[in-house]
Amino acid sequence: MTRIHFHQQLAALKDKLLEMAMTTEQELETAVEAYVKRDEHLVAKVNELEMRVNRSEREVYEMAYELLAKEQPMAIDLRFILAVIKINSDLERVGDLAINISERAVAPPDTPEVSLPVDIHIMGERARIMVGLAIQSLLEEDAALAERVIRMDEEIDAMNRQTQESLMLLMESNTDVTMPALFALIVSRSLERVGDHATNIAEDVIFWVRGSDVRHRAILADAE
Amino acid sequence: MTRIHFHQQLAALKDKLLEMAMTTEQELETAVEAYVKRDEHLVAKVNELEMRVNRSEREVYEMAYELLAKEQPMAIDLRFILAVIKINSDLERVGDLAINISERAVAPPDTPEVSLPVDIHIMGERARIMVGLAIQSLLEEDAALAERVIRMDEEIDAMNRQTQESLMLLMESNTDVTMPALFALIVSRSLERVGDHATNIAEDVIFWVRGSDVRHRAILADAE
Repeated sequence: MTRIHFHQQLAALKDKLLEMAMTTEQELETAVEAYVKRDEHLVAKVNELEMRVNRSEREVYEMAYELLAKEQPMAIDLRFILAVIKINSDLERVGDLAINISERAVAPPDTPEVSLPVDIHIMGERARIMVGLAIQSLLEEDAALAERVIRMDEEIDAMNRQTQESLMLLMESNTDVTMPALFALIVSRSLERVGDHATNIAEDVIFWVRGSDVRHRAILADAE
Repeated sequence: MTRIHFHQQLAALKDKLLEMAMTTEQELETAVEAYVKRDEHLVAKVNELEMRVNRSEREVYEMAYELLAKEQPMAIDLRFILAVIKINSDLERVGDLAINISERAVAPPDTPEVSLPVDIHIMGERARIMVGLAIQSLLEEDAALAERVIRMDEEIDAMNRQTQESLMLLMESNTDVTMPALFALIVSRSLERVGDHATNIAEDVIFWVRGSDVRHRAILADAE
């Protein structure tokens, strides 16, 4: 098998991971919309997207495995393929969190409508953008962008803390809202964890890019 | 490098992962104890163990990477090494969940003492045993044991649902307990997620063992 063929397979692996990332982002966006609008049709759509994400996860893993089994990738490619395997798991878990969120979209019929002091929609959008940028940083080998993703996580952590505090006060003041407030808390924590997964991805990218740098230096040293 | 040397390295990787698993289990046990006893000294101990777990995670990853980079592992060993990389991440996240739990050990000074309708101690012990058995199933290549771990997860999920329901009723009846009840909810959900990670590990073990089976059949077919 030629080296060119190998790089075609590597490109195919990247494409597959990108496709998975886009499906995961769509699942997350739909889940937040389902929760904000209490829309059962959107919940069904989330479940459908989750099945696609799970299928993609297996496909990415098998492609990565085949590459490792049939080729002997050099250090830089090996680190990339291992990063893909880790990032693949992170994306799959973002899908699980989207399910957590959409499960809170439909409350029992006697639950009161309350306006919550939290803009879950904005928080969801932030989390989704973090995932997108983390994947972009992988595909463009951009460690600076990955570092930006990690900094963005502080903001989403702060939003989650604010959410927790204000929902706690709300629950303490009025027992009628315990359930919807608790649902909002779970959604907020889930989004905060999406941010953590984006951070994991960004950290893997930085490690991979720095690994490459080290290797490039080693090659230069060998050539001297 | 000889094949014997390779298998020594593989055995060293197993030992390292086992060491990490044992530290993670100890961290989880200490975190639950810290929470149940509201003990700040135990919280400090959890933080110490977390640093050891994080260090071990990097070491396991580097050992796995070196094995892949310097040897050309055959399919069965390749699948094992990739399983170790995935399981390594799961264990590291169990450590993060232990931190989540121990962070709820110390409530602000004016928080009332309440007796919660949940035995967090038993739930924590279940979760820890699941992690231990999942790692045992890996080391003993025991798919039946891994399947038992997956079945145990239903029990811990049910415990978490019960916890959620009774804490919700408690919160609805009395706003004084909102904070401690919320802390208990977070701890319960964290333990439920530990169970999920043990399940992930068990699933990877089953996939790996079945992968080996497939390979063994392929060898027999080739020999005919």
